[in-house]
Amino acid sequence: MDAATLIAVVSILTAGLTIAIGSIGPALAEGRAAAQALQAIAQQPDAANTITRTLFVSLAMIESTAIYCFVVAMILIFANPFANRAIEAASQGVGG
Amino acid sequence: MDAATLIAVVSILTAGLTIAIGSIGPALAEGRAAAQALQAIAQQPDAANTITRTLFVSLAMIESTAIYCFVVAMILIFANPFANRAIEAASQGVGG
Amino acid sequence: MDAATLIAVVSILTAGLTIAIGSIGPALAEGRAAAQALQAIAQQPDAANTITRTLFVSLAMIESTAIYCFVVAMILIFANPFANRAIEAASQGVGG
Amino acid sequence: MDAATLIAVVSILTAGLTIAIGSIGPALAEGRAAAQALQAIAQQPDAANTITRTLFVSLAMIESTAIYCFVVAMILIFANPFANRAIEAASQGVGG
Amino acid sequence: MDAATLIAVVSILTAGLTIAIGSIGPALAEGRAAAQALQAIAQQPDAANTITRTLFVSLAMIESTAIYCFVVAMILIFANPFANRAIEAASQGVGG
Amino acid sequence: MDAATLIAVVSILTAGLTIAIGSIGPALAEGRAAAQALQAIAQQPDAANTITRTLFVSLAMIESTAIYCFVVAMILIFANPFANRAIEAASQGVGG
Amino acid sequence: MDAATLIAVVSILTAGLTIAIGSIGPALAEGRAAAQALQAIAQQPDAANTITRTLFVSLAMIESTAIYCFVVAMILIFANPFANRAIEAASQGVGG
Amino acid sequence: MDAATLIAVVSILTAGLTIAIGSIGPALAEGRAAAQALQAIAQQPDAANTITRTLFVSLAMIESTAIYCFVVAMILIFANPFANRAIEAASQGVGG
Amino acid sequence: MDAATLIAVVSILTAGLTIAIGSIGPALAEGRAAAQALQAIAQQPDAANTITRTLFVSLAMIESTAIYCFVVAMILIFANPFANRAIEAASQGVGG
Amino acid sequence: MDAATLIAVVSILTAGLTIAIGSIGPALAEGRAAAQALQAIAQQPDAANTITRTLFVSLAMIESTAIYCFVVAMILIFANPFANRAIEAASQGVGG
Amino acid sequence: MDAATLIAVVSILTAGLTIAIGSIGPALAEGRAAAQALQAIAQQPDAANTITRTLFVSLAMIESTAIYCFVVAMILIFANPFANRAIEAASQGVGG
Amino acid sequence: MDAATLIAVVSILTAGLTIAIGSIGPALAEGRAAAQALQAIAQQPDAANTITRTLFVSLAMIESTAIYCFVVAMILIFANPFANRAIEAASQGVGG
Amino acid sequence: MDAATLIAVVSILTAGLTIAIGSIGPALAEGRAAAQALQAIAQQPDAANTITRTLFVSLAMIESTAIYCFVVAMILIFANPFANRAIEAASQGVGG
Amino acid sequence: MDAATLIAVVSILTAGLTIAIGSIGPALAEGRAAAQALQAIAQQPDAANTITRTLFVSLAMIESTAIYCFVVAMILIFANPFANRAIEAASQGVGG
Repeated sequence: MDAATLIAVVSILTAGLTIAIGSIGPALAEGRAAAQALQAIAQQPDAANTITRTLFVSLAMIESTAIYCFVVAMILIFANPFANRAIEAASQGVGG
Repeated sequence: MDAATLIAVVSILTAGLTIAIGSIGPALAEGRAAAQALQAIAQQPDAANTITRTLFVSLAMIESTAIYCFVVAMILIFANPFANRAIEAASQGVGG
Repeated sequence: MDAATLIAVVSILTAGLTIAIGSIGPALAEGRAAAQALQAIAQQPDAANTITRTLFVSLAMIESTAIYCFVVAMILIFANPFANRAIEAASQGVGG
Repeated sequence: MDAATLIAVVSILTAGLTIAIGSIGPALAEGRAAAQALQAIAQQPDAANTITRTLFVSLAMIESTAIYCFVVAMILIFANPFANRAIEAASQGVGG
Repeated sequence: MDAATLIAVVSILTAGLTIAIGSIGPALAEGRAAAQALQAIAQQPDAANTITRTLFVSLAMIESTAIYCFVVAMILIFANPFANRAIEAASQGVGG
Repeated sequence: MDAATLIAVVSILTAGLTIAIGSIGPALAEGRAAAQALQAIAQQPDAANTITRTLFVSLAMIESTAIYCFVVAMILIFANPFANRAIEAASQGVGG
Repeated sequence: MDAATLIAVVSILTAGLTIAIGSIGPALAEGRAAAQALQAIAQQPDAANTITRTLFVSLAMIESTAIYCFVVAMILIFANPFANRAIEAASQGVGG
Repeated sequence: MDAATLIAVVSILTAGLTIAIGSIGPALAEGRAAAQALQAIAQQPDAANTITRTLFVSLAMIESTAIYCFVVAMILIFANPFANRAIEAASQGVGG
Repeated sequence: MDAATLIAVVSILTAGLTIAIGSIGPALAEGRAAAQALQAIAQQPDAANTITRTLFVSLAMIESTAIYCFVVAMILIFANPFANRAIEAASQGVGG
Repeated sequence: MDAATLIAVVSILTAGLTIAIGSIGPALAEGRAAAQALQAIAQQPDAANTITRTLFVSLAMIESTAIYCFVVAMILIFANPFANRAIEAASQGVGG
Repeated sequence: MDAATLIAVVSILTAGLTIAIGSIGPALAEGRAAAQALQAIAQQPDAANTITRTLFVSLAMIESTAIYCFVVAMILIFANPFANRAIEAASQGVGG
Repeated sequence: MDAATLIAVVSILTAGLTIAIGSIGPALAEGRAAAQALQAIAQQPDAANTITRTLFVSLAMIESTAIYCFVVAMILIFANPFANRAIEAASQGVGG
Repeated sequence: MDAATLIAVVSILTAGLTIAIGSIGPALAEGRAAAQALQAIAQQPDAANTITRTLFVSLAMIESTAIYCFVVAMILIFANPFANRAIEAASQGVGG
Repeated sequence: MDAATLIAVVSILTAGLTIAIGSIGPALAEGRAAAQALQAIAQQPDAANTITRTLFVSLAMIESTAIYCFVVAMILIFANPFANRAIEAASQGVGG
């Protein structure tokens, strides 16, 4: 198993697990915030504007942690510096 | 076991686990948000419009984390850059 | 163990686990939403129409994450691009 | 261990685990929905018709995720395309 | 270890685990539904008929997921197509 | 390690685990149902007959999943078709 | 490691784990039922007879799942058909 | 590693784990029942006699599952039929 | 690694784990019972005598499961029949 | 497997897991804080300004732990001192 | 690896784990009892004497399970009979 | 695999896990404290100053445990004494 | 790997895990007791003296289990009898 | 792999895990205590001084368990007696 293959294998596995595990927390957190927002609207319909505005700011903040994971997964698949270096090395020889 | 086979094996395994694990969080979160929305409607039927609108925006936001996982799974199965490169390499020789 | 067999083994295992793990979240979430809908109807029978309509939209949305998993499982069993490629390779030789 | 045996072993193991793990979520979810329906009937006996109708629709929807798992398990035992291909290959030779 | 033995071992292990794991969810769910039914009867004795009827329909539906598991376990022990094929092969030679 | 020994080992291990794991769910579920029945009697002593009758039907239904596990464990120890076949094979030769 | 030793080792390990794991569920369930019975007596001292009678029937039913485990453990230690067969085989030769 | 040593090692390990794991459930269950009894006495001091009598019967019943574990552990250490047989075999030869 | 050393190693490991795991359940249970007793005294100071007497009986009963574990651990360290036999065997030869 | 490849493999795996695991806690915590803020606004609309200001300071503080993880992941992928040193060593020889 | 070293290694590992795992349960239980005592004092300041006396007896009882673990850990480090015997054996020869 | 590479690999892995695992606790704790602060402000707007001041002191104290982890991770990546020593040793020879 | 190194490795690992695992329980327990004390003071400010005195005694008692772990960790690092003996043995020869 | 390298590897891994695992408990406990303090201030603003003083003493006590872990981690990285001894041994020879 040469270096480029090994790096490819690990990158695939890591990218999948990163986004899979990394989506659990944000999803649950958004669900909780949204659920509470709905309850808050039902309890105080007059404050619906303040509530939805605060909700969307919060959802964006929570979504950011999911996006960190997505960014890392995408970097690992499409812009992986270790994989690029290994492929170059394989096609030229090291220091060739 | 040549490189293309190994990458195929890991891609299959990762794609399945990614969508399987990645669907747990969003599903539970959507369930929670929907449940709270139903309770909110029952509590304040007059605010049903605001509630369902906020619910659908929230569901879309939560669904996005499941879609990240689905996108990664689909990329790994149908547009896997590592697999394509390995197949090319196998059919031409490296740098042939 | 040749390449086609190995890919078959991993595909079977992954397909089963994908749908098995992937059905836990949606099922629990649908149960929660449905339970809350029933409670909401009992609490506010006049809003039964709004409640059941919102419930069915939510169930469809939650079911979608289970369907992502089912789709991936079916692709892995019946339309697996890696398996097809390995079988072709085995019956023709690589690039034969 | 030849290819057909290996595929058989993995298929048996996967089929069992798929239905076993896949029955946990739907069962718990149906239990929750049913329990809430019973409470709702006790709370609002006049709405018993609407409640049981909504309950049965919900149970059918939840049961569908268990049925996905059962379908995959049955496919793996009785209509496994990988196993069929391996058996044919063993009885004819590959491309014989 | 010949093929028939290996398949027998895996079938035994899988059959046991399938019914063992598969009985947890339905049992807990039935317990929950039954407990709620008893509470509902205590709360609204006049609706006892509707409640017990709904309970039994629900229990049957939940029991179905346990029965899926039991069916798969029984198939694996007494009507296992892979085991039958392996025994035939061992007693005749493959394609003899 | 010959085939009969291996099958015996796996049967013993599986039988024990099946009944051990399989008794957790039903026991907890029966405990929950019984606890709720006792609370219901305390709350509505006049409905004690209806409650205990519903309780016993429910306990029987829940016990059924424990009995599935016990049946499988007993089959694996005393009427194991794979073990019988392996012992016959060992004492006669295959097809002798 | 001959067959009889291996079977002995597995039987010891399984017997211990069976009763150990199998005592968790029933014990917790009995604790729950008993706790609820005590609360019910405190709440409705006049119904103490009905409550304790229902409690003892329920405890017996729950205890039954612990007894299944104890029976299997005892069978594995003192009346293990696989162990007996292996010892006979070792002392006589197979079919001697 | 001869047979008697191996059986001794497994017996020690199993005996310890059996009583260790097997004491968790009963202890928690007794704690729960006792806690509820104390609450019941505080709530209804006049029924203290009925409550403590029911408590002690329940504690005895719960303790029984811990005692099953202790019995199995003691059998494995001091009256292990497999170990006795292995020691006899070692000191006499098999069937000597 | 000779027999006596192996048995010593396993005895040490098992003794430690037995008392470590076995102290979790009783400690938590005693904490629960004691906490409830304190609450009961605060709620009904006149019944303090009955409460503390019932508490101490219950604590003794719960402590018994911890003592089972301690006894097994002490037996394994200081009065281990398997270890004694192995040491005798090593110093005399088997049946010497 | 040379040193640079090994370090690349471990860096990829660690970077993914770091951000994946590290996003769970902050996401859940932000969800909780946001949910409570929404409830607080509904309960006391006049204090909305104080509440949202406190919320945003808290979210920033919580987000900081996610950012620690993101920073470590980015360092491991793009500015890994160990990887740089290994690559230099490979292209020059050690101390060349 | 000679016998004394192996026993030393296992003793160190076991001693640490024993006290580490064994401190979880008692600590949590003492925390619970103490918390409840504080609540009880706040609720019924006049019974502070009875409460603190009962608390200290309970804490001593709970602490005893932690002390069992500490005793076993100390025995394993400073008065380990297996280690002493192995060291003697190493310095004299067995039965020398 | 030479010493410097091995230490690099372990340092990378440990640094990532340290900050990933170490961010869970502080994040959840800060979320809890912040959520309670928001609720407290809503309940007692007049004490907002005391509440936010106490909140920020507490957040700083909780953050300190996350910073311990971040410090250890940074030390392992950029100022690792073991790695420095190994690199010096590799470039000079030991005691050269 | 010689004896002293192995013992050093195990001592380091055990010392770290002992204090890490052993700090979870006491910390949580102290947090719980402190939280309840604060609530008790808010509820009954006049009993603040009794409450804080009881709190500090309880914290000291709980801290003791953390200190057991710290003591064991320190002994393993700085006063490890097994390590001392191994080092002596290495520098003198056994019984030299 | 020589002794000094092995000890370095284990020290790095243990130091990271120690502070990572060891920060979970204290962080959660401080979060809980702080949250309760904030609630107590909101409930009884007049007792704010007593509450914050008790809070800070408690936080210091809880922080101490995190500091134990940090101290052990720092000792393992910067003042590790085993590592120092191994390095001396490597640079001088044993007893040279």
